[in-house]
Amino acid sequence: MDIVDVAIIGGGPAGYSAAIYAARFRLSLRLFAETPGGLIITTHLVENWPGIPMISGWDLMQRFQEHLESMQVPVEIERVLDVSRGEDGFFHLKTDGGTEVAARTLILGTGSEHRKLDVPGEKELANKGVSYCATCDAALFKEKVVAIVGGSDSAAKEALLLSEYASKVYILYRGAQIRPEPINAERVAQNPKIEVVPKVNVKEIRGTDRLQSVLLDNGTELPLDGVFIAIGHLPQNELALKLGVEVEPNGEIKIDRLAATNVPGVFAAGDVANNPFKQAITGASEGVAAAFSAYEYVRKAEIQPT
Amino acid sequence: MDIVDVAIIGGGPAGYSAAIYAARFRLSLRLFAETPGGLIITTHLVENWPGIPMISGWDLMQRFQEHLESMQVPVEIERVLDVSRGEDGFFHLKTDGGTEVAARTLILGTGSEHRKLDVPGEKELANKGVSYCATCDAALFKEKVVAIVGGSDSAAKEALLLSEYASKVYILYRGAQIRPEPINAERVAQNPKIEVVPKVNVKEIRGTDRLQSVLLDNGTELPLDGVFIAIGHLPQNELALKLGVEVEPNGEIKIDRLAATNVPGVFAAGDVANNPFKQAITGASEGVAAAFSAYEYVRKAEIQPT
Repeated sequence: MDIVDVAIIGGGPAGYSAAIYAARFRLSLRLFAETPGGLIITTHLVENWPGIPMISGWDLMQRFQEHLESMQVPVEIERVLDVSRGEDGFFHLKTDGGTEVAARTLILGTGSEHRKLDVPGEKELANKGVSYCATCDAALFKEKVVAIVGGSDSAAKEALLLSEYASKVYILYRGAQIRPEPINAERVAQNPKIEVVPKVNVKEIRGTDRLQSVLLDNGTELPLDGVFIAIGHLPQNELALKLGVEVEPNGEIKIDRLAATNVPGVFAAGDVANNPFKQAITGASEGVAAAFSAYEYVRKAEIQPT
Repeated sequence: MDIVDVAIIGGGPAGYSAAIYAARFRLSLRLFAETPGGLIITTHLVENWPGIPMISGWDLMQRFQEHLESMQVPVEIERVLDVSRGEDGFFHLKTDGGTEVAARTLILGTGSEHRKLDVPGEKELANKGVSYCATCDAALFKEKVVAIVGGSDSAAKEALLLSEYASKVYILYRGAQIRPEPINAERVAQNPKIEVVPKVNVKEIRGTDRLQSVLLDNGTELPLDGVFIAIGHLPQNELALKLGVEVEPNGEIKIDRLAATNVPGVFAAGDVANNPFKQAITGASEGVAAAFSAYEYVRKAEIQPT
């Protein structure tokens, strides 16, 4: 079985940055990414990666990929199914590809998934009018009537993207006022195709073969061709919990400024961690801090290969 | 007098990233940079900005500059001479260009300077064999003979990192014994490439186009391909101290994970702050956090223009 200094789990800005730095520190490493590039590859337009005025999430992560390649760090496209700490002190990983690795330290950059509404019809009509990714699916809704469910900055950005295709975009939000970044709030307000419908919840998603309407809790049945659900994310903390890593009530892994968790040798970074301001740049920086901490840990550790 | 939401002081990755995000947040801002680009523009080769395998510090900061230009954020090349908090609650700034500004919040990205040896040849051969950053430049010295000047834990760590690349690493220290953490002292002792030369001072750095040797005060002239000066940093904290901002014993500004200092409305980021791992990416991320915190502060503040 391969024994490495650090196993990095995650293919987004956090995991890739951790790998770039770990390789610079001459740590032996394995990098596992179930989704190379991470969730950001579904983002249509990134305008806030410092040094790049405008780029797609996909293209940004291509650059990370090329950086890894320039350092001969391979990305293993495998899902880590299980991890445990052995009596030998190593973290033992098993992947869905049958890979087994023992690692002195672990960096969790496992990211997050889209949160579901959990209403009747949502599951049945997924990919039949129900989507969680405007970047992926917006172009399917040319001259159609669609809605975004949510009030975050992401929701506003998805509405703006959808308005480039759809004839009409509702923003359905449970709160009194949507809360995007000011620049996007302005863009939404000035967009004649977008209509914000505040103080409503979606109770049901209706349709047979395809989405036909959504039922709101104010009694309205709103006819729609597409509904995009943008109500947040679920941190992918399963592996962390298996190791006894402490998480916040919302499931995010508690880390300190050097990306350390409560479990010695386990570090976390990016969307799975408890940074209130989740950006590609902050995730990348946390990945770098995690690599730094893993390097310090390996140098100090008295763990020897068995 | 101009009144703005945030005054950002600093032209490095921290200050520029703060400005990019502050502009996105639609905060009114002024950005003052005594040295546009910051200390990193003196780095010959940056290989650890995620997404860019290799770039000069100068070119990296050009990209930041272009990002600022794309957002119509001007860089004012002025030194902020004085800052104080007025009875009106605003921070009042004066620059050497005669500019006076009042700001609701302040982001200090004032950086640090490498402590210099102050010997002949040091300035002339900077980036021609003389470096102040092993993390940045170690990889340029594969199979070369180098020296670290200094005896701290940082100096020892830089020597260890250099030994991964160089064929020989001297540690030149003025004291009788270097004083790293025990684990690093052990590792230095066990490393066949590293040789500690105690009780010496560098009197002169010699070379024409590139470093050739250093002259020690015991009369030895030591031939070298690279010399790394690791005798500490001087955080540029003068403005912070004027405002009562708490600093560490080494002068670095104490900040939390959201870049807040102990003084409400004052945030700090980058090399002037107390992150033990000072990298462009971590400084940029702190700048982003500072802009986020300034935005939150301005939204919540009850301070009104007088």
